[in-house]
Amino acid sequence: GTMSVVKLEEWRQRIVKELDDTVAFWLKYSHDTTHGGFFTCLGRDGTVYDELKYVWLQGRQVWMYCRLYRTMERFRRPEILEAAKAGGAFLRRFARVSSGQWKCAFCLTRDGKAVKIQRTVFSECFYLLAMDELSRVTADEGMQLEAEQMMEQLIHWVRVDSSGLGRPQLPGDFPTNSMAVPMMLLCLVHQLSEGRGQEVAHKYSELTGWCVQQILQHVQRDGTAVLENVSLQGGELPGCLGRLQNPGHALEAGWFLLQLSAQQQDSELQRTAINKFVELPFQSGWDNGHGGLFYFLDVDGHCPTQLEWNMKLWWPHCEALIAFLMAYSQTKKPELLQRFSQVYEYTFNHFPDADSGEWFGYLTQEGKPALDLKGGPFKGFFHVPRCLYMCELMLDDLLANRD
Amino acid sequence: GTMSVVKLEEWRQRIVKELDDTVAFWLKYSHDTTHGGFFTCLGRDGTVYDELKYVWLQGRQVWMYCRLYRTMERFRRPEILEAAKAGGAFLRRFARVSSGQWKCAFCLTRDGKAVKIQRTVFSECFYLLAMDELSRVTADEGMQLEAEQMMEQLIHWVRVDSSGLGRPQLPGDFPTNSMAVPMMLLCLVHQLSEGRGQEVAHKYSELTGWCVQQILQHVQRDGTAVLENVSLQGGELPGCLGRLQNPGHALEAGWFLLQLSAQQQDSELQRTAINKFVELPFQSGWDNGHGGLFYFLDVDGHCPTQLEWNMKLWWPHCEALIAFLMAYSQTKKPELLQRFSQVYEYTFNHFPDADSGEWFGYLTQEGKPALDLKGGPFKGFFHVPRCLYMCELMLDDLLANRD
Repeated sequence: GTMSVVKLEEWRQRIVKELDDTVAFWLKYSHDTTHGGFFTCLGRDGTVYDELKYVWLQGRQVWMYCRLYRTMERFRRPEILEAAKAGGAFLRRFARVSSGQWKCAFCLTRDGKAVKIQRTVFSECFYLLAMDELSRVTADEGMQLEAEQMMEQLIHWVRVDSSGLGRPQLPGDFPTNSMAVPMMLLCLVHQLSEGRGQEVAHKYSELTGWCVQQILQHVQRDGTAVLENVSLQGGELPGCLGRLQNPGHALEAGWFLLQLSAQQQDSELQRTAINKFVELPFQSGWDNGHGGLFYFLDVDGHCPTQLEWNMKLWWPHCEALIAFLMAYSQTKKPELLQRFSQVYEYTFNHFPDADSGEWFGYLTQEGKPALDLKGGPFKGFFHVPRCLYMCELMLDDLLANRD
Repeated sequence: GTMSVVKLEEWRQRIVKELDDTVAFWLKYSHDTTHGGFFTCLGRDGTVYDELKYVWLQGRQVWMYCRLYRTMERFRRPEILEAAKAGGAFLRRFARVSSGQWKCAFCLTRDGKAVKIQRTVFSECFYLLAMDELSRVTADEGMQLEAEQMMEQLIHWVRVDSSGLGRPQLPGDFPTNSMAVPMMLLCLVHQLSEGRGQEVAHKYSELTGWCVQQILQHVQRDGTAVLENVSLQGGELPGCLGRLQNPGHALEAGWFLLQLSAQQQDSELQRTAINKFVELPFQSGWDNGHGGLFYFLDVDGHCPTQLEWNMKLWWPHCEALIAFLMAYSQTKKPELLQRFSQVYEYTFNHFPDADSGEWFGYLTQEGKPALDLKGGPFKGFFHVPRCLYMCELMLDDLLANRD
């Protein structure tokens, strides 16, 4: 109806402006023109308060810059491409800890010396995202090949033998299916196969099925809860670890599954994605008292042991915006647009910083900024622009194809 | 004067009652009578919400039970001794990861299987504390010898070669003097030498001097700040790591140094301890808006990246109470008793749970419980009873020796 068109237009305008402002903020403050790569520890006004370079965030910023450059006309600007190339070069030169090895550091000094290595696969995943997207812009086949080789290594670590990650196998440490791992692999398959035709899709089809099945195993308690960690057999794990819920993460998994369901025209997967990974985490994760999504919850109502459990973080709200708008776009069910509106109101009333630009990342339960930084070890140029970018595209599409 | 005697009596009564209640809470809810050792993940009402056994907290509870049993008449009760012995037996059987090795796990399953190993020395430190104090109660010389051997291993890891801890040496990871390490060793020296005569004191005298010097290196910025991490040469480290302040930790170091200054009758050390490690961290760490001590601060006023930086934790307040009462006891300067009173008011108005007993551990900046648990991976039977125990003894002494 007319009302919703007005709303869609209003949202779109704000989102376009926020995306432009966010890109401008990071272009202005985050570039290390001496060593390449990006400063991500940026204070409220953009001041660099720490020069460490976190590999997740380096890879994500390269990916996001290239994606904007490649797919949105107004961002096809030389300074964006140059920064992405310099970031890619920094990663290629320094992220992999020893030459010939695929293991990447988690954190580097400004000039690229390894500070810390995590015994997980995520630095490598974001390295891959950067390489594949950058290779699409530069047509660098060697770089694309490196992304594909990294994918083979990741699959080996996740599905065959994780001993190369350096984690000792301890008798009391049960192997766990952590939601992040199949989600991340599904995201990488999407990245590597997008626009590359049936052959590549076929190459990863078995892996895609495995990722979906691993993600769906997190639906527990007779379908009433999504749990962040389950056993390899898809059962519930004991204790806090087993009862942990991360609503923002479940919502992100939700739109990953929705994206796949559209590609595969799988209406059952679409229904499961919406019911179990969009509606359910929103229901359990929304704070009816103060608004916003909790960071962590315990499915049995115990208090989580994470000190930040009741804080409102920017990224779960980004994921919720994408998830509800995608669910609405696919189904046109008005209650899904209503939820988008609810999350939109909270998000745009609380996270953007009207004084200095960009978004606060970490609010108290009551919605007051608890940390005033714009970037840090885990907040970079990624969740905010990815959300705004995807929502802009979806709103464009809704407005172009309205009844 | 009369006024302060009334106050001292009032504080003492409350503290005696809180200590009795705290001991009763842990005796009632934390014992694993099947496997030995202690549950420490206790909800608001004492319910066990996770059965994992954290080695730091196992060792600390054994130590605290034995210390109370050994030195306070009203706690010389068989059930306390039996629980301490069962905790000690659990640790001896399961904490050390492989037989013949000194490395201890960080976390065990209820029945003692290793879940996680930290690449630091703290599990081993609390293991030692437990063994030494338990051996004083049981007169088990083999156990005392094990404590002394563990001390040699710890000294080796800290001062000679840390490679046995399993931490890879990375080119960008500068060796750091972290306040926790010399503090912990000084605490262990105190434990091992207490009441054992000049020979043992002499054995550790060089180490004691080294610990003091390492702790004093954390006074930076021309004596205006205590920083949590400095370089091995005693200089400031770059970035957030170098600018980090942990007021509660500095206050704890303060009373460790005060205790030593009294033993050594070193008035210069006493003055430094009070000015730099008691007054200064209180000045920088106290929240003048809402009261209470911040958990973390950045010396240059940047926002810390720790999400919990502005929360009010129970243990810094415990350390502040001990530090100010000890500083007052040693100097009789009324302003120090005034500070004790200020911390006391905040602490006893915010942390104890009038409904279910024991103390909340984690408050928001505004002083509201953010987590309602009574015990967790880092909160056990240690900081609350140690503080109450030490304050009771100091108040007894002040009241017995008043002018």
